[in-house]
Amino acid sequence: MNGMELDQHYMSLAIEEAKKAGAKGEVPIGAVIVHDGNVIARAHNLRETSRNAVTHAELMAIQQACETLDNWRLEDTILYVTLEPCPMCAGAILQSRIPRVVYGARDAKAGCVDSLYRLLNDERFNHQCEVKENVLADECGGLLTQFFRDLREKKKKRKLL
Amino acid sequence: MNGMELDQHYMSLAIEEAKKAGAKGEVPIGAVIVHDGNVIARAHNLRETSRNAVTHAELMAIQQACETLDNWRLEDTILYVTLEPCPMCAGAILQSRIPRVVYGARDAKAGCVDSLYRLLNDERFNHQCEVKENVLADECGGLLTQFFRDLREKKKKRKLL
Repeated sequence: MNGMELDQHYMSLAIEEAKKAGAKGEVPIGAVIVHDGNVIARAHNLRETSRNAVTHAELMAIQQACETLDNWRLEDTILYVTLEPCPMCAGAILQSRIPRVVYGARDAKAGCVDSLYRLLNDERFNHQCEVKENVLADECGGLLTQFFRDLREKKKKRKLL
Repeated sequence: MNGMELDQHYMSLAIEEAKKAGAKGEVPIGAVIVHDGNVIARAHNLRETSRNAVTHAELMAIQQACETLDNWRLEDTILYVTLEPCPMCAGAILQSRIPRVVYGARDAKAGCVDSLYRLLNDERFNHQCEVKENVLADECGGLLTQFFRDLREKKKKRKLL
């Protein structure tokens, strides 16, 4: 596989994670972390199930990866995530020194990699990342669009009952 | 106690936490979360000990508070932290909807509340916070200055041996 195919392959694993979140009624966002070609962490958004504000896919994947590598520095890793990271997750990426981040769809409301801020490329911080966006973006974004459409339909039906 | 005295009281508890971190060889930063006058979370930076990039004082305190209140929304809470939050922790504050944040010293290198960004007061996000800085700032900042001075001394001695 070439670089683009590899990115699409790992993003498809992040999409599988996102679907697991959706099946639990969670906003469908998923992430995986790859180290030397091995997937060392997989996670999906669990905010409602866990009742914990910080259980975003990326943050949990970063915690798993730190545990696996027994290090807070995630050198030689790539984070794949279906949606552009929020400020918390962008910050966690900086804290863990992940060198490369690949994401699917942009998040115009809260994205802090390209949309509202460019936190991963601010030279005042002690770490910057290589960023690639728009990998399987239609599928990543489509999961979210469908999720919120279904949610609105359910709410409408509830009102009619 | 009036408002200022209360803020100083809770900040002194965050300073106690910071000292616990320092005693473990961790950068001395501490945080507490107060809900209706009760301290519901206390935490200190544990990055080196835990080998986990996300174990900042604020992030761990937020997780504890979510667990205690069994809710990802930390309504009616105040977060006290000795140092201006980094992007990750500022983002976690937004995610958990903490309404008020009180901090001690500014962090000119990575602070995202006043120094480099004002993430807690960006109306494009779905949450904004009331922020108070400079509470027992000299003591909060002094702990950090002393910690890094001691670290440099130790390194110098090691080189001389």
